[in-house]
Amino acid sequence: MAGTPEVEAAARGTFKEWVEVLAIPNVSAAPADIQRNTNWFEQAFKRRGYRTRQLPNNGKPMLFAEAPNAKDTKSTVLFYAHIDGQPVTPSEWNQESPWKPTLKQKTPDGRWMELPIERLYDAKVDPEWRLFARSSSDDKAPILMLLAAIDALQAAGVEPAINVKVLLDTEEEVSSPSLGTVIRENLAFLKCDDLVVLDGPMHPSNRPTLVFGNRGIARATLTVFGPRQELHSGHYANYVANPAMRLAQLMASMKDEDGRVTVKHYYDGIALDDRARRVMAAVPDDEPALRKRLGVAETEKVGGNYQEAMQYPSLNIRGIKSADVGGKARTIIPDHATAEIDMRTVPETPPERLFDLLKGHVTAQGYHLVEGEPTDDDRARYPKLASLMMGKGSSSGTAVRTDLDSPIGVWLREAMKRAHGADPIEIRMMGGTVPTGVAVGALKVPFAIVPLVNADNSQHSFDENMRIGNYLDGILTLEAILRLEKSR
Amino acid sequence: MAGTPEVEAAARGTFKEWVEVLAIPNVSAAPADIQRNTNWFEQAFKRRGYRTRQLPNNGKPMLFAEAPNAKDTKSTVLFYAHIDGQPVTPSEWNQESPWKPTLKQKTPDGRWMELPIERLYDAKVDPEWRLFARSSSDDKAPILMLLAAIDALQAAGVEPAINVKVLLDTEEEVSSPSLGTVIRENLAFLKCDDLVVLDGPMHPSNRPTLVFGNRGIARATLTVFGPRQELHSGHYANYVANPAMRLAQLMASMKDEDGRVTVKHYYDGIALDDRARRVMAAVPDDEPALRKRLGVAETEKVGGNYQEAMQYPSLNIRGIKSADVGGKARTIIPDHATAEIDMRTVPETPPERLFDLLKGHVTAQGYHLVEGEPTDDDRARYPKLASLMMGKGSSSGTAVRTDLDSPIGVWLREAMKRAHGADPIEIRMMGGTVPTGVAVGALKVPFAIVPLVNADNSQHSFDENMRIGNYLDGILTLEAILRLEKSR
Repeated sequence: MAGTPEVEAAARGTFKEWVEVLAIPNVSAAPADIQRNTNWFEQAFKRRGYRTRQLPNNGKPMLFAEAPNAKDTKSTVLFYAHIDGQPVTPSEWNQESPWKPTLKQKTPDGRWMELPIERLYDAKVDPEWRLFARSSSDDKAPILMLLAAIDALQAAGVEPAINVKVLLDTEEEVSSPSLGTVIRENLAFLKCDDLVVLDGPMHPSNRPTLVFGNRGIARATLTVFGPRQELHSGHYANYVANPAMRLAQLMASMKDEDGRVTVKHYYDGIALDDRARRVMAAVPDDEPALRKRLGVAETEKVGGNYQEAMQYPSLNIRGIKSADVGGKARTIIPDHATAEIDMRTVPETPPERLFDLLKGHVTAQGYHLVEGEPTDDDRARYPKLASLMMGKGSSSGTAVRTDLDSPIGVWLREAMKRAHGADPIEIRMMGGTVPTGVAVGALKVPFAIVPLVNADNSQHSFDENMRIGNYLDGILTLEAILRLEKSR
Repeated sequence: MAGTPEVEAAARGTFKEWVEVLAIPNVSAAPADIQRNTNWFEQAFKRRGYRTRQLPNNGKPMLFAEAPNAKDTKSTVLFYAHIDGQPVTPSEWNQESPWKPTLKQKTPDGRWMELPIERLYDAKVDPEWRLFARSSSDDKAPILMLLAAIDALQAAGVEPAINVKVLLDTEEEVSSPSLGTVIRENLAFLKCDDLVVLDGPMHPSNRPTLVFGNRGIARATLTVFGPRQELHSGHYANYVANPAMRLAQLMASMKDEDGRVTVKHYYDGIALDDRARRVMAAVPDDEPALRKRLGVAETEKVGGNYQEAMQYPSLNIRGIKSADVGGKARTIIPDHATAEIDMRTVPETPPERLFDLLKGHVTAQGYHLVEGEPTDDDRARYPKLASLMMGKGSSSGTAVRTDLDSPIGVWLREAMKRAHGADPIEIRMMGGTVPTGVAVGALKVPFAIVPLVNADNSQHSFDENMRIGNYLDGILTLEAILRLEKSR
């Protein structure tokens, strides 16, 4: 473990708190549990002299905390993290309970062996140990790391170089349905110059990582209608068009062999300059190893590498179905065929525009679009009938991106370099969708994501865990961020 | 009712037998029931002086019957029909039981009203009445009509102009798995010059119908493999190819917009001469009404009309699936996608050849075909992986066709013309698949199908019924066939 004695001491000082709060179940479907977590975190910040406020949210209050001694001369940074965790199936876990934090060490033959939890509180910890529990990484760990970084500064008698505010979400794992509302209702407290999101896994190389954006998501359901009812394939094949074949033809018309979307204007507005390309090329992705792990010999050619591919909106068939396969298959012409589509969006391609392009593409293939089922009149008039519906709740998955050379980027890059002696890995755009867009949209400030947990943490699954070395490194990162002045 | 007094009397003479045998359940899954049916029909033929023999078949004996006084100078014609019926769901039926034959008359407002069964035995029957019961049409009615035609000839003191043999199948509704074996084991009895199949519905116009062939069926399962396991569509869409999209592209490559198969050589060998085209054009299909009933504004353009379309092999997606649609859809890249294909074959395109063409087409699109799941080595080597399996049991669905101007065609056409005063509707090829091919393959004789039941008979469903007028017309048809000499 690197860092000052204060940082080391501060880390050890939070281990007991970490174990304590991981014992409180945090599935957002149980508001009473969420309330206990909010209370716990409120006390933790209070102990450090922070002013706190529970932000009402249907029985699952979010937490606002603010460092004392705010100064107008300093930039105000809001740190976002979340308290809630994914649901658990306790029987899957290789420990007594997901709510009983368990320290483990890997044996030479690759198994995880339990250690007495007291070992964590010893003077000497092994960075390769891991603490297993729901939310041990996602996303309680970053909050504990922030508390430790605050402790380290206080122990050193140093005031943070920024005004620190904290917002802890309680519904992130259910797509933060009310985050935007809660922020807007409490803008007076949450007002800030920048947003730093402490969530998500670091790059698989485990090197410090700085993320500038994430893709959004939009869903669409496309149904092609065939005959009024399923038909005997002997009597009608060659005569009545098969909706599964037509859907196949329609979907096939949307992408080329390389995986590039052929819907006109789909990629319009996306421009990757040399700076962006250099940043993406510098990410140490081991693509041959990745392909091997995924089990594919080649990848699509939307971008020149993995990072570039994430800069474009996708058009993905997440499910397709017509009649039945396997033992239930019958010799029929189906009456309809459905494809579930998801489009990962980027800031240049808002969901509504992609949906309109998709709609235009379908009608350009000769389809008449109906809402619901076609009527007899529709059936008599239009040779090709389909329905295309945009999924609900797309707004919680907005794409956002901060410029690589924006002040927040420059500041965080410098802080991470001071903490670790090297530039962080910079991810211009992560492929997945997180609720960042909601917060950014409500706060209207620049943002960046600083992920602090190991990529192989099994988050969202059983045996979620946090590598102790990452916990220590994360405190270093946050301590450096708190110490570095940010120009307003 | 037209015809001679002997024919009218003969028809009435069989009504009680018809009602009696329809009361015996005949689902082939219950061998004891099948045995009772075989026994019943054996007695019915014995009463008419026929020699009979039960042909062993795993507890469900088929029946062979032969008219007395066979003469070497006459052609020997084997009439095929089947005893067994489709399973029933009694609660669906609008009568006491599918096994209690029920006479019904349509009311002016279009409902079916029950009549006392005794009305059927009165001197005067209404041709619009219908008898409802499982197998009232499919396929006990034609056997009863044949018995009535035999009675009519005997009443008139006329010997049939052909040597009459009869084979009653007991497993037609389960695809006649042992018909070929039973025929081969009993060829000494079944030897004949021609085969006349008494099964299937007449043309919807209800005009006398003569069928020269039927399509066969072959099944194939095509699976395209994606990544080793389902992937998060945020992190991997645009990078890992989606197997549902690839399957869509692959299927789309097999057909054009008009529904014509684009797999090379798929239609090779099919030649429709002017005679065939005239016969097909003469079929009084009401295609606008058909399209309206099916709910489609346009049809595929494989042939110029419905009849022509049935002369070609089809390539039909009978089911397709990848991951899930609707409420169970997740935002993933699926790990595989499967299409179930059925190909209706014609005599020029045997199933094995079509399967080979399909296989060649898939590999020509760059796919490496594996058996079962791809290995790690397959995944590392081949960018496109799929499996293509031919379905089992295809041999029971062989396509067969008799030449329109073959002696059996000339003979049957003339007989039907004598019975009804006009040429029958001639169907060169029916689209569906019946076990005719098995019988033809085992007997190695020319054949034709003479369907005698109304097309709107709800066969295979609940409320199966037989129109009395069709029953009477069928006896006329069969009586004329028995009376007409066929040159050897």
